[in-house]
Amino acid sequence: MSRPFLSANARRFVLSDAETSTSAGEWSVSSAELAIATRTPFTIRQRLLHGGRQEGVTLIEVDNGKLQFAVIPTRGMSLLQGKCGGVTLGWNSPVKEIVNPAFVQLGARGGLGWLDGFNELLVRCGVEWAGHPGIDNGELLSLHGRIGNTPASKVVVVVDDQPPYRIHVRGTVVEQTFKFSDYALETDVSTEPGSASFRVSDKLVNRSDYEREFQIIYHSNFGPPLLESASRFVAPVKQVVPFNAHAARDLSNWTSYRGPSERFGEEVFDVVPYARADGSTTVMLHNASAVCGVRIDYNVKELPHFTLWKNTDTMKEGYVTGLEPGTGYPHPRSFERKHARVPTLAAGASRSFTIEYAVLSGAGPVADVVADIAKIQGNRPLQVDAAPENS
Amino acid sequence: MSRPFLSANARRFVLSDAETSTSAGEWSVSSAELAIATRTPFTIRQRLLHGGRQEGVTLIEVDNGKLQFAVIPTRGMSLLQGKCGGVTLGWNSPVKEIVNPAFVQLGARGGLGWLDGFNELLVRCGVEWAGHPGIDNGELLSLHGRIGNTPASKVVVVVDDQPPYRIHVRGTVVEQTFKFSDYALETDVSTEPGSASFRVSDKLVNRSDYEREFQIIYHSNFGPPLLESASRFVAPVKQVVPFNAHAARDLSNWTSYRGPSERFGEEVFDVVPYARADGSTTVMLHNASAVCGVRIDYNVKELPHFTLWKNTDTMKEGYVTGLEPGTGYPHPRSFERKHARVPTLAAGASRSFTIEYAVLSGAGPVADVVADIAKIQGNRPLQVDAAPENS
Amino acid sequence: MSRPFLSANARRFVLSDAETSTSAGEWSVSSAELAIATRTPFTIRQRLLHGGRQEGVTLIEVDNGKLQFAVIPTRGMSLLQGKCGGVTLGWNSPVKEIVNPAFVQLGARGGLGWLDGFNELLVRCGVEWAGHPGIDNGELLSLHGRIGNTPASKVVVVVDDQPPYRIHVRGTVVEQTFKFSDYALETDVSTEPGSASFRVSDKLVNRSDYEREFQIIYHSNFGPPLLESASRFVAPVKQVVPFNAHAARDLSNWTSYRGPSERFGEEVFDVVPYARADGSTTVMLHNASAVCGVRIDYNVKELPHFTLWKNTDTMKEGYVTGLEPGTGYPHPRSFERKHARVPTLAAGASRSFTIEYAVLSGAGPVADVVADIAKIQGNRPLQVDAAPENS
Repeated sequence: MSRPFLSANARRFVLSDAETSTSAGEWSVSSAELAIATRTPFTIRQRLLHGGRQEGVTLIEVDNGKLQFAVIPTRGMSLLQGKCGGVTLGWNSPVKEIVNPAFVQLGARGGLGWLDGFNELLVRCGVEWAGHPGIDNGELLSLHGRIGNTPASKVVVVVDDQPPYRIHVRGTVVEQTFKFSDYALETDVSTEPGSASFRVSDKLVNRSDYEREFQIIYHSNFGPPLLESASRFVAPVKQVVPFNAHAARDLSNWTSYRGPSERFGEEVFDVVPYARADGSTTVMLHNASAVCGVRIDYNVKELPHFTLWKNTDTMKEGYVTGLEPGTGYPHPRSFERKHARVPTLAAGASRSFTIEYAVLSGAGPVADVVADIAKIQGNRPLQVDAAPENS
Repeated sequence: MSRPFLSANARRFVLSDAETSTSAGEWSVSSAELAIATRTPFTIRQRLLHGGRQEGVTLIEVDNGKLQFAVIPTRGMSLLQGKCGGVTLGWNSPVKEIVNPAFVQLGARGGLGWLDGFNELLVRCGVEWAGHPGIDNGELLSLHGRIGNTPASKVVVVVDDQPPYRIHVRGTVVEQTFKFSDYALETDVSTEPGSASFRVSDKLVNRSDYEREFQIIYHSNFGPPLLESASRFVAPVKQVVPFNAHAARDLSNWTSYRGPSERFGEEVFDVVPYARADGSTTVMLHNASAVCGVRIDYNVKELPHFTLWKNTDTMKEGYVTGLEPGTGYPHPRSFERKHARVPTLAAGASRSFTIEYAVLSGAGPVADVVADIAKIQGNRPLQVDAAPENS
Repeated sequence: MSRPFLSANARRFVLSDAETSTSAGEWSVSSAELAIATRTPFTIRQRLLHGGRQEGVTLIEVDNGKLQFAVIPTRGMSLLQGKCGGVTLGWNSPVKEIVNPAFVQLGARGGLGWLDGFNELLVRCGVEWAGHPGIDNGELLSLHGRIGNTPASKVVVVVDDQPPYRIHVRGTVVEQTFKFSDYALETDVSTEPGSASFRVSDKLVNRSDYEREFQIIYHSNFGPPLLESASRFVAPVKQVVPFNAHAARDLSNWTSYRGPSERFGEEVFDVVPYARADGSTTVMLHNASAVCGVRIDYNVKELPHFTLWKNTDTMKEGYVTGLEPGTGYPHPRSFERKHARVPTLAAGASRSFTIEYAVLSGAGPVADVVADIAKIQGNRPLQVDAAPENS
């Protein structure tokens, strides 16, 4: 890259690094301090959290001048929540604290311990395994794997030194067990100053000398105001299959949402989206009046499957929907393997995953995305399977 | 409340709060610093512990001028021990450190991991479940639940601004799992300057939108000098049932204690106490010569069942007895449910539990309590069941 | 002891102590600061580690002027690695971080969670149990026990105040569970300034009032340059038995090593060494050209069994061999008990274990140790069992 005026050091901040055993603790930087003249000034701040089960957790808050979001290095670089004008990204979980994985026992409740800390806008599920607990190869695999409860080994903030001065929060999360797996997930969450969107660009590296299975699901979760009664999920869909008999009963309404509903629990749908010729696709969640929404762009070559998690339970229990591009669905790994949805990575190989989240404000932008998605669908058929897959 | 000279800020100290991510660290206050002229000066101090498995634990030490006790925010607001003149409350566990829950794996040993950190004067067992491990609803429930190994989310010290200037150590302990439970236990341990007693006033709130089962047992534990050979447990008793066949063999001596006894292990008795008309009741443990004791007052409307845990093993193994008011007995939850001792809390509902512990010094005070308790019993019959309940 | 010029305080440094709740944090001392005039100046330094799963771990680095090694108080006083001239002791595990036990769930993967943090030169396995996971007395015993994932309760650095001014890093690791066990392992790793060797002198104390079983295996691990194709294990051997059918297939080559080998996995051999009349014995690992090696001296009265772990897998997966004196072999405890290899300690009793590790540089020193070992063997027979023991 030709960067004549590169001043790399001034704009790259190592916030923690296990290799050098460094940790910045409380830290912040602003566009003014960096002498970057963007139209919207930006700030990036790292906090060290206290109290209850969040003692010792670090949190990185980014405000690009228009959009605010937070990344949790201690919890696998998950995104806590976002905000853009009046639109909140994320949801209101009964779990309020940002739980230190030291206080999470993933094996508890027959492998459901992950639920003790679940409250994120985006938590990656994986990578040695993801999905519901189950015995596989004689081992109990806990819900959604370990990556979301693994502290990042190296965390770096980078501000590009050329316009548009994209802001990156990068973190390497190492998931490994001697003799079992050695994965590095190199994450990058980035945004442009003044933009209403952010991008997740991850690279999963199999550092082992052996080919290994992996699974990854981008569990992206939204509550009000995007989610409300009559909100809609919009996507170009090739096939939809109810996750289980419970979801099958409500198949006819699978793209629309109820308001907060007592005893609703959850419904899950396994979706195969259509894509443009280059594999790119777009899905959207918009509110009832279609004046605000979130657009999610990614590539089905990277993430061929998509899970729609409709958890329209009461507000207190967690009124939330998950839009979840993934390498497979959240069935137990043995089930997924049977259905050929557990990919492998060769020794030393890597796979990249890029997802862009954009906040849509106004009827026009929402309608535009509806049109975009309709164009991807074109006149291609939608296959609706009435019954779940056989296990 | 009409408090004309209220100076709330000066006498309320937030020691930690997850919501605002604050933590006071090392901290102390004294009656002198507060300009409170009590007959006995008092101090309250928070320490941050180091070393071994207690690294990172906070401890709040209260000295009311006559009675000293310590509260452990990191361990669910348990009470570590107390001291009043020559009388020690609590016991000498082989576990000396105040163990950070980060180093406790509750699921270990088939659900007995709780024993790795057990050394308290008072540890609450609960609240989603308590009692011995067992499979219930397909889930292994670990010994005595999670609340005693959950760091408090908010800790506040309050000194009343009116005589008698009662000192409160308050902590909210949140026990929750997405989709399973959302309990807040609002604890308050308080004492009056110069007093020989302290009061535990807890409120359990079901923050969920659903009715939920709960269990709570106040596992209050005493060793020497209150416990010795020929110490006695005194209570107004309606019914006593041996916990198991082992306890049944020693039923005739159930209210008296052995000295430290090799290979004794433990004996447990399930007790239904009588109460006064208002539900209040009194139980006591006193030493062999009846010159010192601990009086425990509580209400059977709040805590209808009482467990007597007689662990008169050797001094090094832990010579201790537990006097345990509770919503039920420490059988596995499925057993307790079968016997209708697993209460529920409606959505948003709460239950309060108040227990007062008073140190008795001298033959007179002990005899007075014996008389009090005899008066509660009156001529009402005691039912002694020779055999344990059927499971 | 007659030490006329004893200045004990100046040369004894308490780095942490749970009993007094002290912790030195970052700390260092040098021979110059101690005004000790050794031929080779030495330094001792404690660091507090940051980043990823090693957040909060303490590490003590010793440089005796010739040999460098590091002790990990947070991980049971394990030795991380050593270096002496061009010879590295230890190995290159895929696990790079020094993992805080707070992030290790020993019960995971059916009891294989220990593998999440395994990367040491020396990790003690034990002490209530060691070896492979298995159900015993109705309880799942996790791989290699708990001692290596237990933070030391008291850590002291001592420099002898008389020549040769031996440097000691001492740590007490308490492994206990109420009603199950109460062990204190008093460890001491020491070295003389300018020496190429270090000594591990441990004392295991059963603080319980009951006789208890215990197991301890000194899992000492070496990779390149000592381990390479055609490296040799040299020992005076009375009996060798393959650990399992897999190892049995390669029995004829059991004392020589392959280079890094894909899909090799591991081979394990159960060895009974011969000893000198006083019980002392010597084993060695040397490289292919026999110009460098590590000599290990210990006493078979203390540690009668020896396990040779040959994990000559690829470099990235972990190319490593374990030379492991122990009270038994790493079969599950129930298996070991059946074969009378689970010793007990009476109430209050203790057992000591001393192992000396010396780096050998040059053909002469290696040949000398070969001769020493041959002298121990003398003309005593070697029994090679073709088949593993029956379970």
